[in-house]
Amino acid sequence: MTGDTFEDIGFAKVDTGRELRQGLAEVVYGAGKTADEIVAIVARLKASTRRPVLVTRVDEAKARALLAAEPATHWDAKSRLAVVGEVPPPDGKGVIAVATGGTSDGAVAEEAARTAEALGNRVARIYDVGVAGIHRLLAHADELRRARVVIAIAGMEGALATVIGGLVSCPVVAVPTSVGYGAAFDGLAALLSMMNSCAPGVSVVNIDNGFGAAVLASRINHL
Amino acid sequence: MTGDTFEDIGFAKVDTGRELRQGLAEVVYGAGKTADEIVAIVARLKASTRRPVLVTRVDEAKARALLAAEPATHWDAKSRLAVVGEVPPPDGKGVIAVATGGTSDGAVAEEAARTAEALGNRVARIYDVGVAGIHRLLAHADELRRARVVIAIAGMEGALATVIGGLVSCPVVAVPTSVGYGAAFDGLAALLSMMNSCAPGVSVVNIDNGFGAAVLASRINHL
Amino acid sequence: MTGDTFEDIGFAKVDTGRELRQGLAEVVYGAGKTADEIVAIVARLKASTRRPVLVTRVDEAKARALLAAEPATHWDAKSRLAVVGEVPPPDGKGVIAVATGGTSDGAVAEEAARTAEALGNRVARIYDVGVAGIHRLLAHADELRRARVVIAIAGMEGALATVIGGLVSCPVVAVPTSVGYGAAFDGLAALLSMMNSCAPGVSVVNIDNGFGAAVLASRINHL
Amino acid sequence: MTGDTFEDIGFAKVDTGRELRQGLAEVVYGAGKTADEIVAIVARLKASTRRPVLVTRVDEAKARALLAAEPATHWDAKSRLAVVGEVPPPDGKGVIAVATGGTSDGAVAEEAARTAEALGNRVARIYDVGVAGIHRLLAHADELRRARVVIAIAGMEGALATVIGGLVSCPVVAVPTSVGYGAAFDGLAALLSMMNSCAPGVSVVNIDNGFGAAVLASRINHL
Amino acid sequence: MTGDTFEDIGFAKVDTGRELRQGLAEVVYGAGKTADEIVAIVARLKASTRRPVLVTRVDEAKARALLAAEPATHWDAKSRLAVVGEVPPPDGKGVIAVATGGTSDGAVAEEAARTAEALGNRVARIYDVGVAGIHRLLAHADELRRARVVIAIAGMEGALATVIGGLVSCPVVAVPTSVGYGAAFDGLAALLSMMNSCAPGVSVVNIDNGFGAAVLASRINHL
Amino acid sequence: MTGDTFEDIGFAKVDTGRELRQGLAEVVYGAGKTADEIVAIVARLKASTRRPVLVTRVDEAKARALLAAEPATHWDAKSRLAVVGEVPPPDGKGVIAVATGGTSDGAVAEEAARTAEALGNRVARIYDVGVAGIHRLLAHADELRRARVVIAIAGMEGALATVIGGLVSCPVVAVPTSVGYGAAFDGLAALLSMMNSCAPGVSVVNIDNGFGAAVLASRINHL
Amino acid sequence: MTGDTFEDIGFAKVDTGRELRQGLAEVVYGAGKTADEIVAIVARLKASTRRPVLVTRVDEAKARALLAAEPATHWDAKSRLAVVGEVPPPDGKGVIAVATGGTSDGAVAEEAARTAEALGNRVARIYDVGVAGIHRLLAHADELRRARVVIAIAGMEGALATVIGGLVSCPVVAVPTSVGYGAAFDGLAALLSMMNSCAPGVSVVNIDNGFGAAVLASRINHL
Amino acid sequence: MTGDTFEDIGFAKVDTGRELRQGLAEVVYGAGKTADEIVAIVARLKASTRRPVLVTRVDEAKARALLAAEPATHWDAKSRLAVVGEVPPPDGKGVIAVATGGTSDGAVAEEAARTAEALGNRVARIYDVGVAGIHRLLAHADELRRARVVIAIAGMEGALATVIGGLVSCPVVAVPTSVGYGAAFDGLAALLSMMNSCAPGVSVVNIDNGFGAAVLASRINHL
Repeated sequence: MTGDTFEDIGFAKVDTGRELRQGLAEVVYGAGKTADEIVAIVARLKASTRRPVLVTRVDEAKARALLAAEPATHWDAKSRLAVVGEVPPPDGKGVIAVATGGTSDGAVAEEAARTAEALGNRVARIYDVGVAGIHRLLAHADELRRARVVIAIAGMEGALATVIGGLVSCPVVAVPTSVGYGAAFDGLAALLSMMNSCAPGVSVVNIDNGFGAAVLASRINHL
Repeated sequence: MTGDTFEDIGFAKVDTGRELRQGLAEVVYGAGKTADEIVAIVARLKASTRRPVLVTRVDEAKARALLAAEPATHWDAKSRLAVVGEVPPPDGKGVIAVATGGTSDGAVAEEAARTAEALGNRVARIYDVGVAGIHRLLAHADELRRARVVIAIAGMEGALATVIGGLVSCPVVAVPTSVGYGAAFDGLAALLSMMNSCAPGVSVVNIDNGFGAAVLASRINHL
Repeated sequence: MTGDTFEDIGFAKVDTGRELRQGLAEVVYGAGKTADEIVAIVARLKASTRRPVLVTRVDEAKARALLAAEPATHWDAKSRLAVVGEVPPPDGKGVIAVATGGTSDGAVAEEAARTAEALGNRVARIYDVGVAGIHRLLAHADELRRARVVIAIAGMEGALATVIGGLVSCPVVAVPTSVGYGAAFDGLAALLSMMNSCAPGVSVVNIDNGFGAAVLASRINHL
Repeated sequence: MTGDTFEDIGFAKVDTGRELRQGLAEVVYGAGKTADEIVAIVARLKASTRRPVLVTRVDEAKARALLAAEPATHWDAKSRLAVVGEVPPPDGKGVIAVATGGTSDGAVAEEAARTAEALGNRVARIYDVGVAGIHRLLAHADELRRARVVIAIAGMEGALATVIGGLVSCPVVAVPTSVGYGAAFDGLAALLSMMNSCAPGVSVVNIDNGFGAAVLASRINHL
Repeated sequence: MTGDTFEDIGFAKVDTGRELRQGLAEVVYGAGKTADEIVAIVARLKASTRRPVLVTRVDEAKARALLAAEPATHWDAKSRLAVVGEVPPPDGKGVIAVATGGTSDGAVAEEAARTAEALGNRVARIYDVGVAGIHRLLAHADELRRARVVIAIAGMEGALATVIGGLVSCPVVAVPTSVGYGAAFDGLAALLSMMNSCAPGVSVVNIDNGFGAAVLASRINHL
Repeated sequence: MTGDTFEDIGFAKVDTGRELRQGLAEVVYGAGKTADEIVAIVARLKASTRRPVLVTRVDEAKARALLAAEPATHWDAKSRLAVVGEVPPPDGKGVIAVATGGTSDGAVAEEAARTAEALGNRVARIYDVGVAGIHRLLAHADELRRARVVIAIAGMEGALATVIGGLVSCPVVAVPTSVGYGAAFDGLAALLSMMNSCAPGVSVVNIDNGFGAAVLASRINHL
Repeated sequence: MTGDTFEDIGFAKVDTGRELRQGLAEVVYGAGKTADEIVAIVARLKASTRRPVLVTRVDEAKARALLAAEPATHWDAKSRLAVVGEVPPPDGKGVIAVATGGTSDGAVAEEAARTAEALGNRVARIYDVGVAGIHRLLAHADELRRARVVIAIAGMEGALATVIGGLVSCPVVAVPTSVGYGAAFDGLAALLSMMNSCAPGVSVVNIDNGFGAAVLASRINHL
Repeated sequence: MTGDTFEDIGFAKVDTGRELRQGLAEVVYGAGKTADEIVAIVARLKASTRRPVLVTRVDEAKARALLAAEPATHWDAKSRLAVVGEVPPPDGKGVIAVATGGTSDGAVAEEAARTAEALGNRVARIYDVGVAGIHRLLAHADELRRARVVIAIAGMEGALATVIGGLVSCPVVAVPTSVGYGAAFDGLAALLSMMNSCAPGVSVVNIDNGFGAAVLASRINHL
């Protein structure tokens, strides 16, 4: 990735050389950029690498502009993630499980899952397994235990990370989401809950940061 | 209960007449009172009622003074609850289950359990069933489901209330505790977590308020 | 209720078997769903149950789509609650009183009242009895005392729950609302106030969570 | 009052000339000062005025030192207020009512009441009238209505100010106290509650600031 | 004022009889009401009283509807206050000074000033005297000292109340405003600053609550 | 600057005489003012001074109105700063370096840089040198060390100020920005981070306050 | 580990079977337990396993009691960690680097380092490399890059995690510490800073939770 | 300064070469160090430099140990600052004014003043000029205006910085203090107030950080 494309919100500039060893794609953070800026950056990146280019937080209008300029673009409306170019076959060592508490966590989950896939990982989606219906989660216990990393995504009371942390022995990356209302305080309740997880092996990334969780999980999966 | 004994911290003055219908004992909040004050209040109460007198948050020194004045006092070191006089046989309709996440929640749990017993309830103690080891909790699922009310007590991430709320169909009274450190913020994390519980039938009382949870549970159990 | 309809924000998946014992209707949380999704879920639910289906937080556009698909829909603009199918006669043991501080609390109050009715409860609406005009509340003291559960709904300083808690001996479910401005902090002031209620028998649910309060009150009323 | 005695915590330097018009005594804030400093300041003040000197937040040891130096000192253990010299007969126009929610608010209440008396006001103490037992407060409604100013002191949920504000038509000065635990957050819950009072005529001073409330009430009472 | 018009946000129901003694006009809180509701309430009030009717927080569209129905309406765009009927000559004992830190505080100041005038008070507007240019404030020192009550309105760091509190010996009602950005946190910084005022005689009302400050000041001015 | 133009949000009234000694331009805070008000104020200022007039936080519509009235206006879309009249050659003693963590901090940075230039300072822009790619910052170490003051602008974790503080021996003015999401809490995380900087010589201004940082830096640069 | 020893604060009960696969020692959380309880639990654990037993947060008095009962105990005063029995040779795949900002972070760092060692990992201690003196950190860049996981421990502004995150391509576990004063708010500033890290691959555990970071790092190192 | 003495709380490691240019003394942060550690570090520093060594936050016991080892030590009880060796004559270009709101701010003020003196600055102490008695501050206006930098130290509402910022045209370094109670929240109110100062040229350091303010002021004074 060239200097112009380092991420100024949420993700840092990624050195090409170093990330190559992880199979990491190029990444452009799309939120604060115009369609023109995105198109220009992607063009420059495509000229210097064969790897796919990820553009995060791309709304529909920007996606259309990008598709017009780069026909090999695939954009997903839910996650708002655009992937330009072909995603290579996964080279991660195991599976990254992406679990969510409810369907409202879906956008963050898809950002995580699709980022992980673009970074060369196999992903198991285990959605809507919130702990208020614990049997739903337990039905997936074996699948969770087979994963090399679990990304646990939940808003509201954020208890999913703790219960999963008690079920598995692999690292668990917890992502609080801004889902909820009132005393959820835009994800603060879930964040505090996850920070206090009494299960071992759980760590936390920023609210709604599905992308960051996927990068971390991919690093672990490529160790 | 006479005017002098109404509770100024945490519990309100309780009208004798009304509470009698629930089998409620007299209650004195001991935290802000000297040993002499407690002894005097208890003496006056004993003169006007046959029911037992509860004194909450009594430390050891005050307990000794009370025992010297009222030999029929039983004081529990863990819950710091003193009961003066004989507790009548339970007249509540079902069982109140008191569940905790870990042993550090024990003092709050015993305050709840012993208060509930003194108010005429049968209590099932289901301790140390934190959700990071979900099998421990599930092993008690039937016992929880047989309860008429569950008091769910937990600090840290406070997830216990939600998981129990998904297992039972009776009311769940959640008590956040100040157990934990760092981002637990003296119970705030557990409080927010419990307020956001995505299980139906869960409501929350103040941090460490085992007494208040027991009074509410007893009211429900005597309906 | 089938798996697709469990509530991901604010309410948990509800097992049909268990809830049947309480006469609970099916519930769909409408806020995060499109009109099409709501229509599809309701259709599937209607095919599998004779009970009414509640859809919460439905705006007018979605309500119209639902009414077009399901003519037996009744939608209330204030509470944004849609009820599909006939509400059976109440089978709860007593009356649930729903009290509010002011007219601005009306939407939350109607969500609570109509949910409670759909779940098989008789409801007494005692609105606009804020404690700044205490005679208004006292004029309803007998009606409050006759209730089996009281839902106390208030924003601003949230004092209603405490005063009611001192008037009645039944359980009081307090609902802070986001009514107010400035130091109300979107319901935080009312929430903290209610958490600190010095009346016994009061517990608290999330800000604006009229639905959750009604489910809890209904459970208590069906014990 | 000379320059050395202006108050650096909580109260400002008070110009002698101006305050004389209100009958205000001299005031020394004792919390951050040694016994020697207090004795020296009081001696200097006594040399320049015939009015009594108030010293606030004086602990027992400092009180003894002060009494040894100034035999005309009266110190009250509860309020920790020392008054040196004779308090003149009240010259305020009406009565200042000091109301509290519970006995734990007593220290703040006595600081307010004794300060008001030293500043030349008649004071009606209406203690332990917390709103969880509303009949206690209503029994004093006439007395409250006869007051020219009411100081309403309460911790926990702080609802007292609102209910009194609805009963009287005079100014109400609300004092949140740090009484309580857990979600009381050292008086924050009461402060927010009082700031959101939906009764007209209520304003708020700092947590536990009985002195400040009394100065304000005295100013109003001497208008 | 009839039962329908009691204020549910920010102000309590006001008993006609009591408020008459203060010359208080009728008050309707307009924010949460439709134009139709406001018109209906005002019509009913006008039928039962000769006093003017205040409607607060009325936007332009509602103001037009009100004017169409009640030609004797005067609406002020800045304060969004509508006064229906003639304001009687002032009967307060002194002058209420309304001081602001900057022009952005103007809307709150005008709500305070016009409310005070409608309640029968003479008002001195002392605007744009923020303490960062202290000479501006000092130029008005005599005018402030002549006031019977001062309403000090400021956002940002809220220091105005303290400096005025040190200049005058009358009561000071401080109104924090939501003016500012960043660490102003929508008025929280000003609120905390004013709560900690080290000047005597200062008390605080809610953020942006010009109306409430005026009601309190009017009560003091009519004592 | 005349009385009408003092800044009510964020900046104080600036005395012409005093500021002249620093070469300070006139400043009008544009956010809370209409286009007409801005045009009128600028006209009055231009009549009384030869110095340029700065208008901050001017959106495009207001900029057009200003340009129509004052053809010598230059408006910058990114910083929303309008400068009316010719900026004199710099007379500051050294260079003010303006450093940012990422491109999203650009608007605040340009407000700082252009304000500093208009106040008579040479500015070195060192943008996009966030500490997650430390080599980018180190590549500018010599340029930073040559500066007389550094303005360090960053959102998210705000670490830039600390690292720069360790590289230079001149004063560092830190500006937290509201860039970020989730636990950035609109700049609070960066603000707290910068307040805790463990590098000497760092002080902090309000979130997004590029203007204030530039005024301070200019004062230092003109000492 | 038997049921009695599961951790109720901060760490969950660990199933022996599962953890064996990671070479995990037994763990007892010592903070909330008496010396007698610790000794009894350790004795029971030693009877059932050959692995070492870790006891965390053990003060000196408890350490002496433990040493008297279990001569094979090694206690470290700084980290307050006791290890009973011999630590087996490391079987982790790489090195865990433990980096700190300053010497005050040492206790948390040693808890992390010694826990990691007891769990079978080689540890590289890279202490006192706070970012205010960036050359200190850069001098260790190669050592950090050779690590398989980095634990970055810092209080105050917590910037260490971000800078390290930009230097390495392995996972970084960030531990905020409660070091600091004032606006550090007992670790909150560092926690928020780390949550907002703009470097990829960084996740966060609770304030001062060196133990939890080590368990997570060990899991990653044993993958 | 050698590597052992870099400051881990509050101040960064300072490179000797660079700081020499400012006349900076060596600095050791004493709070987290034992008397033995302090003595050893000071001895090593004295062996390598002729400049004085500052040790901050030294309590009396440590001061005695230091004096025993280094007879050329001067320790000030109020500021808890120890200076070992002779302070050279001031070489700063102007005067640093240190102003405080009240006597309770004295410890922080003396830490600032004595640090500034040890770093080669002339200091003007302007104490007890809180804005609640504005004439006290104005009496020092000329002295403040003659300063090259002003350090404004205040707790409570922290308004001092703003008023001074409006009086002077030099840089103002604001230091919030933890003086106060209740809603002062340990300095948070003053910090927020100062961050929102509407005077130009004001920036803020951490709560109670007199040392940091002095280092910054000294840097400015040596430019």
